[in-house]
Amino acid sequence: MDQSTAQSETQHQSVTFSQGLALDCGRHLREVTVAYRTYGTLNAAKSNAILVCHPLTCDQYVAETNPETGRPGWWERAVGPGKPVDTDKYFVICANVLGGCMGSTGPRSPHEDDPLRPWGTDFPPVTIHDMVRAQKLLVEHLGIARLFAVVGGSMGGMQTLSWATQFPAMVFAAVPVAAAYYHSAQNIAFHEIGRQAIAADPFFYGGRYWAEGVTPERGLAVARMTAHITYVSEVALTRKFGRKLQDAAELSSLGDRFEVESYLQYQGSSFVRRFDANSYLTITRAMDLFDLAADYGGVLANAFKGTKTRFLLVSFSSDWLFPTAQSRAIARALNHVAANVSFVEVQSDKGHDAFLLEEPDFHRSLGGFLAGCAEHAGLK
Amino acid sequence: MDQSTAQSETQHQSVTFSQGLALDCGRHLREVTVAYRTYGTLNAAKSNAILVCHPLTCDQYVAETNPETGRPGWWERAVGPGKPVDTDKYFVICANVLGGCMGSTGPRSPHEDDPLRPWGTDFPPVTIHDMVRAQKLLVEHLGIARLFAVVGGSMGGMQTLSWATQFPAMVFAAVPVAAAYYHSAQNIAFHEIGRQAIAADPFFYGGRYWAEGVTPERGLAVARMTAHITYVSEVALTRKFGRKLQDAAELSSLGDRFEVESYLQYQGSSFVRRFDANSYLTITRAMDLFDLAADYGGVLANAFKGTKTRFLLVSFSSDWLFPTAQSRAIARALNHVAANVSFVEVQSDKGHDAFLLEEPDFHRSLGGFLAGCAEHAGLK
Repeated sequence: MDQSTAQSETQHQSVTFSQGLALDCGRHLREVTVAYRTYGTLNAAKSNAILVCHPLTCDQYVAETNPETGRPGWWERAVGPGKPVDTDKYFVICANVLGGCMGSTGPRSPHEDDPLRPWGTDFPPVTIHDMVRAQKLLVEHLGIARLFAVVGGSMGGMQTLSWATQFPAMVFAAVPVAAAYYHSAQNIAFHEIGRQAIAADPFFYGGRYWAEGVTPERGLAVARMTAHITYVSEVALTRKFGRKLQDAAELSSLGDRFEVESYLQYQGSSFVRRFDANSYLTITRAMDLFDLAADYGGVLANAFKGTKTRFLLVSFSSDWLFPTAQSRAIARALNHVAANVSFVEVQSDKGHDAFLLEEPDFHRSLGGFLAGCAEHAGLK
Repeated sequence: MDQSTAQSETQHQSVTFSQGLALDCGRHLREVTVAYRTYGTLNAAKSNAILVCHPLTCDQYVAETNPETGRPGWWERAVGPGKPVDTDKYFVICANVLGGCMGSTGPRSPHEDDPLRPWGTDFPPVTIHDMVRAQKLLVEHLGIARLFAVVGGSMGGMQTLSWATQFPAMVFAAVPVAAAYYHSAQNIAFHEIGRQAIAADPFFYGGRYWAEGVTPERGLAVARMTAHITYVSEVALTRKFGRKLQDAAELSSLGDRFEVESYLQYQGSSFVRRFDANSYLTITRAMDLFDLAADYGGVLANAFKGTKTRFLLVSFSSDWLFPTAQSRAIARALNHVAANVSFVEVQSDKGHDAFLLEEPDFHRSLGGFLAGCAEHAGLK
């Protein structure tokens, strides 16, 4: 096993596993690098570790300034000193997902047969379960036999569910937030729009844009815009932008814009400066393939049979992407196998994005659940 | 006034008005052509005419085989002999909207200052009200002083509302179906994705693709795919496609597709063969600008003050694009001015598209309402 703190061009902390990783698709990555960050201190018993799993377009910089964007960590509201995931008390780990573009092995990494060029579209398809197996290498590398908790929202919630079902003995507590046990037809369709927009960009070059020294920015921006709409509720979108025209010349040309449009265009364009298009294709595909019930003979409850993990499920009332019904179905499956499960639907009008925003009820539930579990786990 | 039955390249029946048309943007089109189709027979009193207004991507071929696609008319379920809009009884008119691409004046028409090239992106922005004023020229040209009814779904419902408020004395009965009195922030955002995808296509050439002999097919396909998702409910999408993989090699490559994806790609690609990208930009913008309350000082009820028109409002329970709340708000405004209004929410799980599909409750309501109005209007 090689280890490095300066693996990628952008100096992300990472560890490389020379044994590689067997993927669900049948391929074997000869070696695999996992970029990660940690916060807080691992106790002597190594029993206070919380793994945070990131959503689609986030990364390992969960609770500190992101070195690429200069913005605060993506979940500083939930993770940090005195926060629900309290780094004064817990040792928090967050890893860039397999297939990502922030230092973990992915389409931007050197091709294993031809290291002078990136994998690009030759990168094998990965699954949520593959992402979790890469994280497991990291957790074991850190000497941790059992995670006190795994916590994640959206795609991070899918990973949390994968952890709890692939490696139940390694997960004392699990908190899938705004999560789903399969990706719906509508969600797949929204992802497909993004993928088609990327593929339609003249600078995509069939995925070989890296060889041309360009990036399919416009396609990626359309993909991000599409996703962004699904992250917010109609109420939130209207509250923020309504139908205000940006200037008074209401009808003077087709170029006039409602504010929502310029906002979406801004969101799209800031995203393309930091995200690799082939990673976007790889990761959205991984989400689309997620179907935990199908993995267990079509019966979701079978995924959790005999589990000793304590679960907190959180949904948000205005989330139409991963709606409450999804979390409720998971709760029902867990009840069916007599698991220890709490389920909270947080009343919010902020849509799917609510899990990233200021939601005191959610933060109280998360902090309270972890504190209760800490007591049961014998953590001080 | 010039008249022609073979105005455009594709031989659409049309009439050209040499007086032109004053637009809401302040511009004046020097002449305006309206392509249209009629069905049934105008009675001697010219009192049995029903104007059907078409939605975004449909056209004047409402109840006959479309000459461009070879497919049945887009509303043959609702319009035809013995159908709710009964062509044995009523004289049905349907016109391609101003800004469209099926023979009416639009971005594909010859530029008024330079007839050897099309308007393209120089075509002035038009509004739903402008579309209706063009239709009014046609109705008057046909010698009809008062329409027995105006009927339309989606954008056609917006036109129906515009008719009933701009020219109330010309509309005996109005049926806005799956309609809205303003386009929401979310709906504008979905349109913007489509417009951005078109603008990002390398074959768009800033709207001058006609000069290059190409069409921005991929961008237009992405736009259509986006719109299509908003037309169907999650239930309908799942029922049709679920998560069936198209082939067994589930994970062999990124090219594998869920069925929903190939369906969306098919929908997108058949659409691009028949629709002009600049028309798509023009018409979606017209919808985005629609705000009937804003036109009447922010009070929707003022739009209908003193109306004698009889209204039937129809919404569909699973329509999340133009939800029932929109129709209910219109009904409330009509009640406020003591108008004659019926309101039906049809229980359906087919989403916004339900108004185009087999929905017996909707068809019974529509047919019954028109029959009742015919009696009041003294039609036999």
